[in-house]
Amino acid sequence: KKAGIPGLEPKTLAADILKGNRVALARAITLVESNAERHFEQAQQLLKLLLPKAGRSIRIGITGVPGAGKSTFIEAFGSYLCSQGHRVAVLAVDPTSSLTGGSILGDKTRMEKLAGNPHAFIRPSPSGGKLGGVHRKTRETMLLCEAAGFDVILVETVGVGQSEILVRGMVDFFMLLALTGAGDELQGMKKGIMEIADMVLINKADGPNEAAARKTTEEYRRILHFLQPSTKGWESRALSCSSVTGSGISDVWNTVEEFEKVSKQSGVFAERRRIQSREWIHALISDQLEFSFYNHPEVKALLPKVENEVIAGTKPVASGVEELFQAFFKARP
Amino acid sequence: KKAGIPGLEPKTLAADILKGNRVALARAITLVESNAERHFEQAQQLLKLLLPKAGRSIRIGITGVPGAGKSTFIEAFGSYLCSQGHRVAVLAVDPTSSLTGGSILGDKTRMEKLAGNPHAFIRPSPSGGKLGGVHRKTRETMLLCEAAGFDVILVETVGVGQSEILVRGMVDFFMLLALTGAGDELQGMKKGIMEIADMVLINKADGPNEAAARKTTEEYRRILHFLQPSTKGWESRALSCSSVTGSGISDVWNTVEEFEKVSKQSGVFAERRRIQSREWIHALISDQLEFSFYNHPEVKALLPKVENEVIAGTKPVASGVEELFQAFFKARP
Repeated sequence: KKAGIPGLEPKTLAADILKGNRVALARAITLVESNAERHFEQAQQLLKLLLPKAGRSIRIGITGVPGAGKSTFIEAFGSYLCSQGHRVAVLAVDPTSSLTGGSILGDKTRMEKLAGNPHAFIRPSPSGGKLGGVHRKTRETMLLCEAAGFDVILVETVGVGQSEILVRGMVDFFMLLALTGAGDELQGMKKGIMEIADMVLINKADGPNEAAARKTTEEYRRILHFLQPSTKGWESRALSCSSVTGSGISDVWNTVEEFEKVSKQSGVFAERRRIQSREWIHALISDQLEFSFYNHPEVKALLPKVENEVIAGTKPVASGVEELFQAFFKARP
Repeated sequence: KKAGIPGLEPKTLAADILKGNRVALARAITLVESNAERHFEQAQQLLKLLLPKAGRSIRIGITGVPGAGKSTFIEAFGSYLCSQGHRVAVLAVDPTSSLTGGSILGDKTRMEKLAGNPHAFIRPSPSGGKLGGVHRKTRETMLLCEAAGFDVILVETVGVGQSEILVRGMVDFFMLLALTGAGDELQGMKKGIMEIADMVLINKADGPNEAAARKTTEEYRRILHFLQPSTKGWESRALSCSSVTGSGISDVWNTVEEFEKVSKQSGVFAERRRIQSREWIHALISDQLEFSFYNHPEVKALLPKVENEVIAGTKPVASGVEELFQAFFKARP
């Protein structure tokens, strides 16, 4: 219904992505992330063409407090995976992510090695996006990366607000990066975060920190034992690793592979993806309902008046809401 | 736009309610609770007539685990208030409330004294209602009771699911009933429940239990001291009482009065009511948006197909949602 944008022709773009062309992939992500109405139709055509080739990756969410070493871990883990023949896409969810904005190009020390690896693809989160929007775009970006042949998707979240719940709702495996000194750290840890993790990974287990890391790992193991598992049939694990020496990194991957095998055999893997798809639909519906309502010109104009009348006690709430809905349904642009 | 129902004529009903007629009040609540479309207009007219006379009560939420003695406390507290010249309305939010259904008439031991008091009005929650609906109706029922001259509204919730959060969002003062043995009980207590209470009340402080109750009260006091207060400028209190001997019951009321005085002077009382009104509007809007969407005949017919296609990976999620919205906006009945 709208004219296509040159250079973003869905069939050509799809063919290039399926060949693993990274420039085409980056372009396609920008297209999907676009909020411009004229891009919507193209983006949807592209996704429809690529959907049959998507879904064949293991999607791994990674969270942890600032300072837990997420970017050095992702660099080490991603590089290891590439060396094992995998193709790794790294996506960031939060605007404040370590991947975001200028940090990849500006701060050369961050993921420099991985960013230069031909088997890796790094995509910071859209800048300034609201979480709801980022969430939606991240799921579609995952599909594009999968179609481009990336078989491991790492989704990084700094765990601010609700973002790690959103990420848990779009990945197969969820990993919490922690530091030594569990006792202290647990105090400051967000409630409920341990319950959604399939693995707690104690990072920086190297040098003088190694013994403490081992002790902390044991503590987490004991705690996890008493928690409801995040994934049915999988007792969440505590492991330690060093992103500097590389020790333990292969164990992390072996554990993910074991998880994949176990949960695919039991059907839990496929069932979770079905549930995630359904939840995704309903989350989008809620977003879009609220968006169309609150951005409707007549509703926008009427709302402050209704709010004031209700607060002043001169209008019953339900009458005010009824008025708003009449305006909403009466005049469709 | 719809013909009025005889016996529910808003002006007559409003006049009777303002005279304190309890039969008229009960009828009006039934009208407001009705989901029938033909009752909506009448209910709204009635509320509009009564709004100028509503709002002049102290609204108190009461929660506690089953066995904490909510109904015996409400009986003792309500009777005390009536003896002091107050008029007390007791509303239940949850379908499983101790007030609900047959329990008032069937189980004669429950609130028998208060139910027979001419200065009290007891209203169980609408049976079988969903929480969202109950929540909406409870707020309007409070307004009707206030217009009928009840100056203390007690809203009971058993604290299942999210109900105590909903109740906190519609009352001025929130009270948590607890039992002795804080250590054990705290283990089973819902996370966050202490943070929304303005008072923790240790019930059953009588007989051989009295010393333990005093000790428990001290423990709660210490804990509350470390928590963020539920109401700005008010450090949440821990008190004990006996619904059997009546000891401590007057202190509970004195504390509520002190709270009212302090929070009215600081402006926190009025500000909370303003915020609650605004939140109420937006909660109703969300409810009604989802209701109109998911009950739209074309959306209803299309949704399972879209869900299946998305789950099967043959349709992009956003396309599916777009289809649903086209159906929603195209054919308005």
